[in-house]
Amino acid sequence: MNKTKEKVNAAIVIIGNEILSGRTQDVNVVTISKWLNDLGVKLEEVRVIPDTEDSIINTVNELRKIFKYLFTTGGIGPTHDDITSKSIAKAFNMEYGYHAEAYKILEKYYGKDKFNTGRKKMAMMPTKASLILNPSSGAPGFNVDNVFCLPGVPSILKSMLGGLNNKIKGGKKILNKTISAQTVESEIAKALEQVQNKFKKVEIGSYPFFRQGKIGVSFVIRSTEKKQIDYCHKQIVNFLKEKKIQIIER
Amino acid sequence: MNKTKEKVNAAIVIIGNEILSGRTQDVNVVTISKWLNDLGVKLEEVRVIPDTEDSIINTVNELRKIFKYLFTTGGIGPTHDDITSKSIAKAFNMEYGYHAEAYKILEKYYGKDKFNTGRKKMAMMPTKASLILNPSSGAPGFNVDNVFCLPGVPSILKSMLGGLNNKIKGGKKILNKTISAQTVESEIAKALEQVQNKFKKVEIGSYPFFRQGKIGVSFVIRSTEKKQIDYCHKQIVNFLKEKKIQIIER
Repeated sequence: MNKTKEKVNAAIVIIGNEILSGRTQDVNVVTISKWLNDLGVKLEEVRVIPDTEDSIINTVNELRKIFKYLFTTGGIGPTHDDITSKSIAKAFNMEYGYHAEAYKILEKYYGKDKFNTGRKKMAMMPTKASLILNPSSGAPGFNVDNVFCLPGVPSILKSMLGGLNNKIKGGKKILNKTISAQTVESEIAKALEQVQNKFKKVEIGSYPFFRQGKIGVSFVIRSTEKKQIDYCHKQIVNFLKEKKIQIIER
Repeated sequence: MNKTKEKVNAAIVIIGNEILSGRTQDVNVVTISKWLNDLGVKLEEVRVIPDTEDSIINTVNELRKIFKYLFTTGGIGPTHDDITSKSIAKAFNMEYGYHAEAYKILEKYYGKDKFNTGRKKMAMMPTKASLILNPSSGAPGFNVDNVFCLPGVPSILKSMLGGLNNKIKGGKKILNKTISAQTVESEIAKALEQVQNKFKKVEIGSYPFFRQGKIGVSFVIRSTEKKQIDYCHKQIVNFLKEKKIQIIER
């Protein structure tokens, strides 16, 4: 097993011409990322790639060896541009065809009469995949090894994550705390860097914002260690007070 | 020169722990993608990576050889987590230091008295980079060869794109047309595939939606050839009418 796999991390592959073309705003990364934070899995890379077999196979085969978990979104519907399931079967050199259990679920969901070719296509996947149940619209997702294939429609994807919890072995929950202050980054860059240098296991991000006409900076402290976050938080609050900078949120 | 470089395509690298952590919703992909469509440049890949030197250097060096244009967003501010400029210099084996022109711009923008260390850091980049002017907040972006480094703050990024138009040599403008209809994908999958098979130079995407309680599907036709789009559009409208499916938008 690849050594990096022992890190409790994940990547997402968004299979979606509609995201690349700028037509659709992706929102699934935020959903999956927040869910992973709670499970103690760190999202470390996202790729958005076109709906082509080569790009899916190459990207999935590259990333599934680097990350402990890999999630794909999109391309598991009934139309010609839905080629994720077939591509995943090819990536793993597995048989692609009707998945017995998925077929039964879909046949029951639509009723025998209305179970047409398009709908049947949604039962086609690597035949030995494990299913990811879909409480909102019938058609299941699936996983093969550490690759989890989810739909692109945000509400459906969201409804399927809960059922996945027992398949993910996370680490310590990733916690965060935010401080927002009425300042500009250049005023606090030095003091902030000094705090960061003291806490190597804490990730401190600094993000300027413009809110209701006000300019400010948010400091986001992330770590699995609550004590470290609290201590770090205190030191940032302290230097903001020393500099007489107004704290908006802490 | 790499052969694939002759394609008028692009990739984006989002340098941002805040996107990976789920704290911030990226909106820059949509902005850049739409701007590229108008310039006739096809966005073909997006990667979101952490704010670490290794990941920036490796990703940039991989993608700049594959794509004609590469855009990075984020990490060019004054704080400790802003390491894009330094990493790009390393990726290109170029000298990193004060950029004479950027230094002058920033000194003038802030005034000599207020031009502190944090602000000066924003003038540090590959010393031989070309600048990308920033009409909204002073600090310029820059490009080295085909790699264009932009800020992460959406409003600032947006304001800087216009000034870049003359540096991008695009192809034919990428056009699109959307038809939305009250149907489900499985009902039209076969007919749609037949249309797609007739038009190999047109990209037809099919996207289910739930809008104000109504279920529907949007068909998005993309191509640089207006005639092809129109003809394809007509054929989709025709089969929808034949199937007595209500067209919401065309």
